[in-house]
Amino acid sequence: MEKIVSLQNSRVKKWASLHQKKYRDMYGLFLVEGDHLIGEAEEAGVLEALIFDEPCSRYCENMFEVTPQIMKRLSANVSDVHMIGVCRKKDQVSGSAKRAVLLDGVQDPGNLGTIIRTAKSFSFDAVYCSPDCCDLYNEKAIRSTQGALFHIPVIRTDLAPLIHELKKEGFAVTGTSLQESCPLSSLQKQDKMAFVFGSEGQGVSDKVLEACTNAVRIEMDGFESLNVAVAAGIIMYAFRG
Amino acid sequence: MEKIVSLQNSRVKKWASLHQKKYRDMYGLFLVEGDHLIGEAEEAGVLEALIFDEPCSRYCENMFEVTPQIMKRLSANVSDVHMIGVCRKKDQVSGSAKRAVLLDGVQDPGNLGTIIRTAKSFSFDAVYCSPDCCDLYNEKAIRSTQGALFHIPVIRTDLAPLIHELKKEGFAVTGTSLQESCPLSSLQKQDKMAFVFGSEGQGVSDKVLEACTNAVRIEMDGFESLNVAVAAGIIMYAFRG
Repeated sequence: MEKIVSLQNSRVKKWASLHQKKYRDMYGLFLVEGDHLIGEAEEAGVLEALIFDEPCSRYCENMFEVTPQIMKRLSANVSDVHMIGVCRKKDQVSGSAKRAVLLDGVQDPGNLGTIIRTAKSFSFDAVYCSPDCCDLYNEKAIRSTQGALFHIPVIRTDLAPLIHELKKEGFAVTGTSLQESCPLSSLQKQDKMAFVFGSEGQGVSDKVLEACTNAVRIEMDGFESLNVAVAAGIIMYAFRG
Repeated sequence: MEKIVSLQNSRVKKWASLHQKKYRDMYGLFLVEGDHLIGEAEEAGVLEALIFDEPCSRYCENMFEVTPQIMKRLSANVSDVHMIGVCRKKDQVSGSAKRAVLLDGVQDPGNLGTIIRTAKSFSFDAVYCSPDCCDLYNEKAIRSTQGALFHIPVIRTDLAPLIHELKKEGFAVTGTSLQESCPLSSLQKQDKMAFVFGSEGQGVSDKVLEACTNAVRIEMDGFESLNVAVAAGIIMYAFRG
């Protein structure tokens, strides 16, 4: 265990930089707060370091006791945070993947986090986000995953080339669209399936829809309006891994 | 059309009071902002009055032009609101109702609003909220309904007596629980069905579960964790009206 008292300490500066996306991308690391999330990170084996300013109930190989001032500098919350975990991003997909979710411009961090949580619960193997999706590693998105992001790879990438790659690997890639689509209850189960969900306002872009194998819609009556995380939940449940 | 210039005007005072729950309950009215929501209220016939400070694209029998100062006083947002609708709450359930959702202590306004939106999309007839659910008429909840709350009755009431009433009317009332429950895929469709969803932290309370006809769980593998609005979406889709 190491004790750090200076805000100028190089580790403190590196950790503080993780509040910015470019440094999270550069280091492949991000911060989480709260006992539940840190416990999930520990269990998933992605906890790189543990920072605390009060006696600490969790364990990790790299433990750092810091001053309350340093804790305040590192925390995204105003008060009452006494333990922060430094976590490694999980972004390797297993070669035997059979279920994937692709997100095309999802804007709301709560929706993104909820979709990742649902994907893990229904045994999906990966979540892919287009570059214009909101950032996954902001606090609201992380909290909405309820720790699932430590257990499922989440990868930011251009969707059209990815879809061509998935199709080559034998995936049926199904877009979601109210037009020119088959109803969910008539979509056949395949060995390898990927589903694409779009942004809250616009849905899946035409360019991405064109790259897909086919398209599906959820049957509704009259008031045709579903939140994207709810729609994703219904479809992932129907074709859970 | 009437023009109002004084913040002391009695109508302005009444409208401003609608930011507080007790006055919304007393008058049976609430405020909404934005063209989309006002359009939905108009279409549903629940728009009582329209307040604006710039030329207005919507119509209603009671139109009030106000000053920007009054608009600012009435709006929940900091800027850019030029039209506010005064709406009547919708809280009468049709006698021929066959699908109902019951919410036991749902805390998050976004989840509550999303469940109402989903219920309308899957042709449910009513949403009942326990007294300890969060308030429906706060801005975040209203926005999450995407206007569905103008089209489906939402009623705040004690759930245990309601469940007994629904059972007398021939409803199968199904609670959601991970324990002592049947998997969703084996639950039989009935003519009249009601589903109970619980709070984000605790789920459905024991007292309410005991009053139910039976209980159901959504099949998951390993990481058993679903957002309540996602769980509600999956079950309402499976038994849509």
